[in-house]
Amino acid sequence: MKSNFHRPPSIVHRRIVALAGGVGGAKLAHGLAQILPPEDLTVIVNTGDDFEHLGLYICPDLDTVCYTLAGLANPKTGWGRANESWQAISNIERLGGPNWFRLGDQDFATHIERTRRIKEGQCLSEITRDFCKAWGIKHTILPMSDNPVRTIVETDEGDLAFQEYFVHRRCEPRVKGFRFNGIEKAEAAPGAREAIQSADAIIICPSNPWVSIAPILAVPGLRSKMEAKKVVAISPIIGGQAVKGPAAKMYRELGIEPSALAVAKQYEGLATDFALDKIDSHLEAEIRSLNMRTLVTKTLMKNVKDRRRLAEDVLHFIGTAS
Amino acid sequence: MKSNFHRPPSIVHRRIVALAGGVGGAKLAHGLAQILPPEDLTVIVNTGDDFEHLGLYICPDLDTVCYTLAGLANPKTGWGRANESWQAISNIERLGGPNWFRLGDQDFATHIERTRRIKEGQCLSEITRDFCKAWGIKHTILPMSDNPVRTIVETDEGDLAFQEYFVHRRCEPRVKGFRFNGIEKAEAAPGAREAIQSADAIIICPSNPWVSIAPILAVPGLRSKMEAKKVVAISPIIGGQAVKGPAAKMYRELGIEPSALAVAKQYEGLATDFALDKIDSHLEAEIRSLNMRTLVTKTLMKNVKDRRRLAEDVLHFIGTAS
Repeated sequence: MKSNFHRPPSIVHRRIVALAGGVGGAKLAHGLAQILPPEDLTVIVNTGDDFEHLGLYICPDLDTVCYTLAGLANPKTGWGRANESWQAISNIERLGGPNWFRLGDQDFATHIERTRRIKEGQCLSEITRDFCKAWGIKHTILPMSDNPVRTIVETDEGDLAFQEYFVHRRCEPRVKGFRFNGIEKAEAAPGAREAIQSADAIIICPSNPWVSIAPILAVPGLRSKMEAKKVVAISPIIGGQAVKGPAAKMYRELGIEPSALAVAKQYEGLATDFALDKIDSHLEAEIRSLNMRTLVTKTLMKNVKDRRRLAEDVLHFIGTAS
Repeated sequence: MKSNFHRPPSIVHRRIVALAGGVGGAKLAHGLAQILPPEDLTVIVNTGDDFEHLGLYICPDLDTVCYTLAGLANPKTGWGRANESWQAISNIERLGGPNWFRLGDQDFATHIERTRRIKEGQCLSEITRDFCKAWGIKHTILPMSDNPVRTIVETDEGDLAFQEYFVHRRCEPRVKGFRFNGIEKAEAAPGAREAIQSADAIIICPSNPWVSIAPILAVPGLRSKMEAKKVVAISPIIGGQAVKGPAAKMYRELGIEPSALAVAKQYEGLATDFALDKIDSHLEAEIRSLNMRTLVTKTLMKNVKDRRRLAEDVLHFIGTAS
């Protein structure tokens, strides 16, 4: 297959597996997809956030990654569809149905058709492959597993299903821990282990380490396949704050000062390389002492150009001799 | 309850039960609802057309009647919602999903929320009552039964589920007969028998006798409750043609010349009164010979005014001493 992707001449041909959650992960994956040819990038996406709602099988992270790579994502929110309309959900609301999870009309189509196929016996990775094709996505996007894994947030108000915590309760309850129901029996999606096996490097995208990356790493067989590899993690914490979402709040509630260093410590023993923001350069020495090479760069992705630039920086970093 | 409905002084206070299918039935029910106070009108609607599609529980006739009485129906098609958008179905189409049953975004809300409630254990009549309330419908609309009844069209191409025949195959296969799966075990919806019991008259709306009215009459216990009553049927066949849908084609394929007379014969032994269009006045004598009083009037309902006028005509007719 001849590729139309123009790799900057300074970037060595490398097979990359990116691990991603929602918005932050999707942005870097999009940057990578702008540079790497389809055969060189596999994105493995967290499905611990998946849930059933309104009778539909919803995969928030998977959809965010797909919509982003397809150029269909809402540029303002980073999730959901661009040019979205809200006829269905506002009519559901009028009928007294649950309205706390705002689904747009185009987005509903994804969930309705996915649910239909699941009921027909298709598996999530197969459906995702078909959807990617329909959306014109050439790179490989895999759910971490075809088996249901459900992230449970253990809080001071009891155990909450992830979306219940995240959307319905707006991350307000204090976090005490996490578990991933079904993870022991989850098999890695077809192709995921092979992609890691043949990858030159694994990129852990700047996604929430607790609830986006941890579930992927917990799928039996995935982490162990990464252990001999070059693994570069990009900190989702910049200047002690999460760009988006509850990561910093989670660190604090678990008694950890949120910082790029805290992220690096979480990936200790796995990440060989670590990218942190310039604003956090004072943490570089301590991160190096964890036996990681470091890249200090601009990690905030405000626009599409930023995504590509960060992806280039990370690919250059990987290409550098250690 | 004080009613805001202004009954023309010449129309006697009468409790009415109307039996209705989709568009034609909905139009007359709407005419009746413009005249009768809420406590005096119960519409019992065919659910033999109901089906599951895209994982959703869809009730085409029930929704058409509700949308029409709520003033939400598409004035051009007579079914579906006014000012509808098609984002969800066109995106399902893009994903390769089934697109032969066109569902609008607002309409999807009805099916999604109904399906959610059914899965929660609510029954169809309860859901319909709640939806009517949300849509501002004051008259009572009942599904004929809370139990699933499925109309099967027996054709020269084999048995077809109703919507498969009606929408997907556009009524093309030749009809050989009909059956209503589940009808033996179907119980009349709560309140349906009581409404008939206490009604002064039953109005059989100008709906398809084969597939809209026959299923209602076949629900155990409903027809027998009508037998001592004044029952007026309005012919859906005008000048040998159906105003809408396959009724005339069905008569022909079953070896019967479609006409108001054929309709009257179908209701022989049940209907005490029969309304036919002026264009069919030559059939009046023969219909009378079936032991039915007749009303010859303009039965075509082209606009909202026509619905009210026909409803008034029928109510006057009922009010006349026999």
